[in-house]
Amino acid sequence: MAEPLPTPQDVPAHRIHGLSDGIFAIVMTLLVLELRVPEQAGELAQAAREAHFAADLAALLPRLIVYAFTFLIAGVSWLSHTHFQSSVLRTDRRLAFLNILYLMLVSLLPFTSALIGEHGDTALGVAVYAVNQVLIAAAFLWMLAHAVSGGLMRPGWANERLGQRALVNALVFTVMALLAFAAKPLAWYTPFALILLHPLLGRVMRRPW
Amino acid sequence: MAEPLPTPQDVPAHRIHGLSDGIFAIVMTLLVLELRVPEQAGELAQAAREAHFAADLAALLPRLIVYAFTFLIAGVSWLSHTHFQSSVLRTDRRLAFLNILYLMLVSLLPFTSALIGEHGDTALGVAVYAVNQVLIAAAFLWMLAHAVSGGLMRPGWANERLGQRALVNALVFTVMALLAFAAKPLAWYTPFALILLHPLLGRVMRRPW
Amino acid sequence: MAEPLPTPQDVPAHRIHGLSDGIFAIVMTLLVLELRVPEQAGELAQAAREAHFAADLAALLPRLIVYAFTFLIAGVSWLSHTHFQSSVLRTDRRLAFLNILYLMLVSLLPFTSALIGEHGDTALGVAVYAVNQVLIAAAFLWMLAHAVSGGLMRPGWANERLGQRALVNALVFTVMALLAFAAKPLAWYTPFALILLHPLLGRVMRRPW
Amino acid sequence: MAEPLPTPQDVPAHRIHGLSDGIFAIVMTLLVLELRVPEQAGELAQAAREAHFAADLAALLPRLIVYAFTFLIAGVSWLSHTHFQSSVLRTDRRLAFLNILYLMLVSLLPFTSALIGEHGDTALGVAVYAVNQVLIAAAFLWMLAHAVSGGLMRPGWANERLGQRALVNALVFTVMALLAFAAKPLAWYTPFALILLHPLLGRVMRRPW
Repeated sequence: MAEPLPTPQDVPAHRIHGLSDGIFAIVMTLLVLELRVPEQAGELAQAAREAHFAADLAALLPRLIVYAFTFLIAGVSWLSHTHFQSSVLRTDRRLAFLNILYLMLVSLLPFTSALIGEHGDTALGVAVYAVNQVLIAAAFLWMLAHAVSGGLMRPGWANERLGQRALVNALVFTVMALLAFAAKPLAWYTPFALILLHPLLGRVMRRPW
Repeated sequence: MAEPLPTPQDVPAHRIHGLSDGIFAIVMTLLVLELRVPEQAGELAQAAREAHFAADLAALLPRLIVYAFTFLIAGVSWLSHTHFQSSVLRTDRRLAFLNILYLMLVSLLPFTSALIGEHGDTALGVAVYAVNQVLIAAAFLWMLAHAVSGGLMRPGWANERLGQRALVNALVFTVMALLAFAAKPLAWYTPFALILLHPLLGRVMRRPW
Repeated sequence: MAEPLPTPQDVPAHRIHGLSDGIFAIVMTLLVLELRVPEQAGELAQAAREAHFAADLAALLPRLIVYAFTFLIAGVSWLSHTHFQSSVLRTDRRLAFLNILYLMLVSLLPFTSALIGEHGDTALGVAVYAVNQVLIAAAFLWMLAHAVSGGLMRPGWANERLGQRALVNALVFTVMALLAFAAKPLAWYTPFALILLHPLLGRVMRRPW
Repeated sequence: MAEPLPTPQDVPAHRIHGLSDGIFAIVMTLLVLELRVPEQAGELAQAAREAHFAADLAALLPRLIVYAFTFLIAGVSWLSHTHFQSSVLRTDRRLAFLNILYLMLVSLLPFTSALIGEHGDTALGVAVYAVNQVLIAAAFLWMLAHAVSGGLMRPGWANERLGQRALVNALVFTVMALLAFAAKPLAWYTPFALILLHPLLGRVMRRPW
């Protein structure tokens, strides 16, 4: 396929990256707002004040964990996004729109992460988080499929890895969503399958055929 | 017209894009803050907890829809902005100021979208949203008019499409604002006219004369 | 003066601009959060609902005005910042730090604008806003003085205009701060002096001597 | 060591900088939200209104100080980040991930700064802030160590200064965390050691051996 020439309708890469990096930055830091400073304990003795404050901090711990978790999850999505974008030669208006759709789903991560953090004891809380991840992977695959079929990718890009990674994510989180209703305790362990599957696939793919 | 030379008073394109992309990113993600995680249900049996949480999530649905809607609407405005900016050769201080005015009106979208989402049963709620969109289109046309008359556009830019698109938006949302008071149910269907009018005009415009 | 060479300690321009544009974008849009959607009116007849909502919207008008005002004020500061930065050849660490100080003072604008919007009937409310503007102008002059004396400016930059503009701002807002306590009604009209003084100085400066 | 060639897995510098600058911009400005405009005093005489508002403003002073303090602390971290990044030749995926980890810890600064601001009378409040700073320095050293050992640094970069600066920070804040429990009043003065140690080390390092 001959390398396609950019058209005036194309969206320049630095605009796509500027918007995406901005949205990722906000998504990552948004949950800091949930970490509210506990109120002062009023007129207590020093020892009592220490104990009171320690208890308040301990109560914030779940939110701190959800915060760190979301930050890293969104960070990994950002890494996939940069990886994909590095392989994109030009962005037509449809790819730009699909990118917006993808970012909309990523922006829901702080909300669904907080849901699973506080309502992980309900099947629905687990399922909503898993579905959010499935939709992110699906939007990513849609972007990739459009870019490949439209000849928008750089020659020699690493298509198998990008596509498979998203496909594995979509499958694992679909299983997680289903298990949430069938066998909740198992659902919680599903994401760990990713840690096993991704390096395994990586090794398989590098094998020449 | 001879290509104008940049002057030291000009604002570099990467600054205009940096500010604009930052503001669009915030505008798009701001409404996630409205999606608050429901509180835990306290000491209920598992089945009751599931039902309670399901009802809480269902109550969040309207906000989720307004969120997705605003994200996509702002995303489409961002696409128009990138399209226009790709045709701009240089930005004098007046164009930079008009860009700020345009961004100010775009930043009101999360507010007016939430208004129509929660108060769409009042004529005023519908009209305020429509007027916001009319003002955005008007500010866009003002930017375009200044850039064209000041010779700030790249030679061979697609002026008809950019200007007509904004003009059609301005007209359709003016009709929507008026219908809000005259025939509210009709007002709700006015934006769909855009889906018909934009491709139609696109086809007409491509016809050589 | 020979053109100074960049050193490894220098901060690259795109980092300075990235941070500054991000902070300006947040400062401009932060006050949208103050525009909260009024609650639904409950079980009223349609006409009563319309009137109720109209009254709620009217009550939001002062905040809307403060929002638009802050957006434009911060936008004008951003324009000055881009103008100054276009004349900067390289940024040593002290200039980068002064830029952070300047941004810190600009970030207070939404707060002090809201203060004067809601407490403009007190001398202190007017004075705090004016002092914020004086400090912004002072930080700007400090940046400029350091850049000029350190030989960090591009040859042939328009020094008179940049410096005088900030100096005039500093003087006018100092007068406003003092008048807030001496003759409050006059204080409110002081900023309009800027509209007269800036073009006047512009004309005077262009005159060759 | 031969200069390593970038690989398609590398994350482009402008993406790293775009995300980092966005996150720093948010971290710096987030605490403005804590500066809430005091409510109007209702129907009081003018003199009483002035006094009421003055008292309200005075009550905001501690938050204003925490705001300015966090802004400058985060600003200094940003300066270190730009300094480090200017010496980085290419960013592999592990360095990009470590950068995300570092940013996560920096994003906690507004929270831990507010903690020490309001709960500085408890040992825990002081210690949590100090531990946050220790972790930031540790993540910075981790990034640096990976970049050096992976051959990702530009030839001739100023390694001693970057590494030592972070090491000194880590040590001083470790001492602060320990003193918080052993001798709290001393803990408060520990950060001032940085003001002494950094220039001292700077002088020592410039000495040729």
